[in-house]
Amino acid sequence: MNENENQPTPASSGQSARAQRDQVPRDTTRITRDGFPNSKKIYVRGSLNPGIRVPMREITQSATRTRDGLERNPPVTVYDTSGPYTDPDVHIDVHKGLARPCEAWIEARGDTEVLPQLSSEYGRTREADPALDHLRMNTEHRPRRAVAGKRATQLHYARQGIITPEMEFIAIRENQRREAMREIRKQHPGESFGAAIPQRITAKFVRDEVALGRAIIPANINHPELEPMIIGRNFLVKINANIGNSAVTSSIEEEVEKLVWSIRWGADTVMDLSTGPNIHETREWIIRNSPVPIGTVPIYQALEKVNGKAEDLTWEIFRDTLIEQCEQGVDYFTIHAGVLLRFIPWTAERLTGIVSRGGSIMAKWCLAHHKENFLYTHWDDICEIMAAYGVSFSIGDGLRPGSIADANDRAQFAELKVQGELTRRAWEFDVQVMNEGPGHVPMHMIKANMDKQLEWCGEAPFYTLGPLTTDIAPGYDHITSGIGAAMIGWFGTAMLCYVTPKEHLGLPDRDDVREGVITYKLAAHAADLAKGHPGAQHRDNALSKARFEFRWADQFNLSLDPDKAREFHDQTLPAEGAKIAHFCSMCGPKFCSMKITQDVRDYAAQQGIEAEKAAALGMTEQSEAFKEQGAELYHEV
Amino acid sequence: MNENENQPTPASSGQSARAQRDQVPRDTTRITRDGFPNSKKIYVRGSLNPGIRVPMREITQSATRTRDGLERNPPVTVYDTSGPYTDPDVHIDVHKGLARPCEAWIEARGDTEVLPQLSSEYGRTREADPALDHLRMNTEHRPRRAVAGKRATQLHYARQGIITPEMEFIAIRENQRREAMREIRKQHPGESFGAAIPQRITAKFVRDEVALGRAIIPANINHPELEPMIIGRNFLVKINANIGNSAVTSSIEEEVEKLVWSIRWGADTVMDLSTGPNIHETREWIIRNSPVPIGTVPIYQALEKVNGKAEDLTWEIFRDTLIEQCEQGVDYFTIHAGVLLRFIPWTAERLTGIVSRGGSIMAKWCLAHHKENFLYTHWDDICEIMAAYGVSFSIGDGLRPGSIADANDRAQFAELKVQGELTRRAWEFDVQVMNEGPGHVPMHMIKANMDKQLEWCGEAPFYTLGPLTTDIAPGYDHITSGIGAAMIGWFGTAMLCYVTPKEHLGLPDRDDVREGVITYKLAAHAADLAKGHPGAQHRDNALSKARFEFRWADQFNLSLDPDKAREFHDQTLPAEGAKIAHFCSMCGPKFCSMKITQDVRDYAAQQGIEAEKAAALGMTEQSEAFKEQGAELYHEV
Repeated sequence: MNENENQPTPASSGQSARAQRDQVPRDTTRITRDGFPNSKKIYVRGSLNPGIRVPMREITQSATRTRDGLERNPPVTVYDTSGPYTDPDVHIDVHKGLARPCEAWIEARGDTEVLPQLSSEYGRTREADPALDHLRMNTEHRPRRAVAGKRATQLHYARQGIITPEMEFIAIRENQRREAMREIRKQHPGESFGAAIPQRITAKFVRDEVALGRAIIPANINHPELEPMIIGRNFLVKINANIGNSAVTSSIEEEVEKLVWSIRWGADTVMDLSTGPNIHETREWIIRNSPVPIGTVPIYQALEKVNGKAEDLTWEIFRDTLIEQCEQGVDYFTIHAGVLLRFIPWTAERLTGIVSRGGSIMAKWCLAHHKENFLYTHWDDICEIMAAYGVSFSIGDGLRPGSIADANDRAQFAELKVQGELTRRAWEFDVQVMNEGPGHVPMHMIKANMDKQLEWCGEAPFYTLGPLTTDIAPGYDHITSGIGAAMIGWFGTAMLCYVTPKEHLGLPDRDDVREGVITYKLAAHAADLAKGHPGAQHRDNALSKARFEFRWADQFNLSLDPDKAREFHDQTLPAEGAKIAHFCSMCGPKFCSMKITQDVRDYAAQQGIEAEKAAALGMTEQSEAFKEQGAELYHEV
Repeated sequence: MNENENQPTPASSGQSARAQRDQVPRDTTRITRDGFPNSKKIYVRGSLNPGIRVPMREITQSATRTRDGLERNPPVTVYDTSGPYTDPDVHIDVHKGLARPCEAWIEARGDTEVLPQLSSEYGRTREADPALDHLRMNTEHRPRRAVAGKRATQLHYARQGIITPEMEFIAIRENQRREAMREIRKQHPGESFGAAIPQRITAKFVRDEVALGRAIIPANINHPELEPMIIGRNFLVKINANIGNSAVTSSIEEEVEKLVWSIRWGADTVMDLSTGPNIHETREWIIRNSPVPIGTVPIYQALEKVNGKAEDLTWEIFRDTLIEQCEQGVDYFTIHAGVLLRFIPWTAERLTGIVSRGGSIMAKWCLAHHKENFLYTHWDDICEIMAAYGVSFSIGDGLRPGSIADANDRAQFAELKVQGELTRRAWEFDVQVMNEGPGHVPMHMIKANMDKQLEWCGEAPFYTLGPLTTDIAPGYDHITSGIGAAMIGWFGTAMLCYVTPKEHLGLPDRDDVREGVITYKLAAHAADLAKGHPGAQHRDNALSKARFEFRWADQFNLSLDPDKAREFHDQTLPAEGAKIAHFCSMCGPKFCSMKITQDVRDYAAQQGIEAEKAAALGMTEQSEAFKEQGAELYHEV
């Protein structure tokens, strides 16, 4: 999601621009590389393409004490967005960038070429400016483009019936539990693991969903550092986090750390909404160090090139910006081509007009020139560029509602219909497409958004901001929107753009980003559960079993935010002993409902009767037996 | 909700009991009495009963600057649960308790009598113990009971066709916007207020909903300090917060402050889940100082009377506890009478067995004695007691699921069916009833809970804990459950029991309570919007208008948590000037989507054309005009 309100840009761009020019400290910001507790990075290899190594996080559990001794709890593997940063065996040099696992696959397809120089005039100017030398990376990246007449997109390959290595990678990744279970079985032969293997997502299924336009693999041929992922409603629901450069400080470590922090907590893609004079270089830092797809809103940079005057924007400036970013490796672009001139006056009747930044830029341009949106009129040109670099569309919703009052109005739905038209035109160029959606929508009006999007946009993936289900809780809009996000995810939205607690109020700090990402991660997971995604419930079950058995550390380690879970527990019972206590702070050691349940279970087991039949048996006898065992069964640790 | 996991009881009750006995400091904890910014307490008088004064909070707004000068924004009134504490004209003495506005109404009905002494043996023992003198209040409360053969319940009156003052109070309160608008019109004659008056909730409607059992008015005749409120799906969705006494410190100010803090942020009812040796006195402190209904789980206290040994519980001990609490003024009781012996073995097959504390107490009792739950077998006796004091049931869901894996299983639904049977039996005694519900339920399984409850429990109000929509986010369970709460509220749940971020992990502190209450307040409001409650959207619209017009202070003041909204804004733009700036920190002064929308609107207005037709007119001419006006229309403040 692009122009949402928590976009971290400077409060005063004039001042910050100077600040940024004057001081570019190579500071010592640490890149977060800590692993998660009791976790290790594992890699699952592909079968079609042996070069494939799909990263996953394996969480080790402690054993359960039973009457008959210890019962092993198998490790749980979880989808891992954190990239090489959480692999202690990988050397990271942010000035050099990550390794480039996809490069060989791209080269092997033989439909692209390395260019002798950047195609963007702006890019070449930046490259030639010695004043910017201190901002440059020590990278081996050279711009690549499809050879004439070729379309280097995953949609193109899928339509040819090709299963690319990216597709196989994704099949293993989406299916991680099953694949991981196979690995675990190999490592621990002879042990029994109770859980059933869920229905499998195959590489062929991935290909077919891409070919149908129902899913996209955002993967620019200039971003070979990628760990491929998929966005589509028949896969795990994904989330996006937004980052932007700082106004007053700017070092490569600092900017990369924002990315690393977001993906650490679970961001599946990251949108770079940086502004200011050095966004070209900042973007390079981010892409070269990113294992997740990077999205941008190119009109933001184009606007900076015309000093913020929307009416001075031209197709030529926009086109050069697009190519500049394509050759850097941006994986998807938000483009507000659906904001048509005739829709704009309708927004005057709204309570909150146009709240999308990209939408309002284009509205201003249209009004100033009284011409149709040039992004719309140049759509085919844009598609050709995107096809040459394998970049995906995220068609913007510039007229999304900014308040409950404006939800589902004619301006919003008129644009959505145009998004559908643009989707079909992009597909003719083999360009992958997702569509952006609202915004502020009350619960009872959410489903209509999903239904219309599916119908009008040919089942292309939907990518929504929230939606926020009420306007009255600034400071808590990660929650007002988390409600809407979970629901629309269940209804079929493929990716959810996060909202932080600072939405509408200010710039998110590290804690806000973590809070926003975890909120959206849990919303996406709630949607996966509701959709019945194979294996999604495995983690819930493992965590609940740990909770029930007072395996406190396992409960923390299996949670989305182990640090916070442990911190909260520490606030009441800080001693390390309490982490293995057979009680919790809520009821204390003397009385605990989970302990009592264990008594029920033990009792049924000990009597050697099926639970079913227990109630039917002679009651007095059982009552006596229960009392003899010592009805108070709590053992303090 | 009763026995939920964040019940604030001591970690080690043995130790804390001693600590509590030894040190009962009359400390100087301050009772929070600050008003909200730009807000004042107003009272709307009744028409049927002139003694009625319904409290509301009126939030004043600043004016909007337009081309034609200042345009007044009317005050917004909001439902106010905070009681006399936020009225600076009221003197508060927590040792004496609040004023007793309902007393005259109760007396006037002539169906009750003041008793010469407490009916509970335990109560009398406490009263006679000089060692407890330092814990006593200086209150005029004397126990009251229905005279023989009478039923002092709102359901009884409603069935007689009587509109009680409580019902009129509630009609005004639920309808607060309309009533407040009328007041405002009186105060500001001649001014125009745009908003339409919404559909009205009448006292007769309140009576009819109560008579049908579709709504309850929890109002013990021994709690005349109450500001009456209603719980039913055709009214505003309500929320409950849980409080409990502290283990090591205990002063009346401290315990009352917990109540005051919860209702300040919006708790409509409060459940007192205190434990330990002085719960009788703590409860007295809370009730005498509470303007909202107080709920308890009497089995918790009964269990303490038998030293925590569930198997030693008897009907007699429970009965005395019930009467003890009835005469103190508890407004509703959670009673786990639906946990039947034959259901208990089914829980052995569950992933997380029985997680309800009350449910597990009764399960343990049933197993130990191999007899049917004595709460079930004595239901009619319980109903008679409740009818004599006007106390309402909150029939517990002792077998609610504690994990996604256990959601909607046969144990849960078997109990729900019994809840329905108990509901109908209670209605025969004119006792008001609501039913408690889960728990942990994935989104796609939520609606079935509501549908079955409506069907099996005769449309009695549903009162749910969450439900939590995933198990994997400890530390964020206010959010996992806020999602489920908003949804089930929309589907028809009348009251939502809050969950704090500490759920499953520890005891909530003040910040956690505020976070939990606000989360549930926004979830309830999202449900009101989705249900189309008359006037619910008024506050959203006012806030969004303020946001759009950069009336920052109004945006903060209209929000659920003005303090947090201002604090977050301050973190980015601390200067007071920024609060009146026509830009926000997200886009800065140079470019702002809301400003651009204003341009669109100004432009349409200035041209004297309807927005509809604007696009159809000659484009070149308009383009020129727009440029002449100075296309850059931003005015920095």
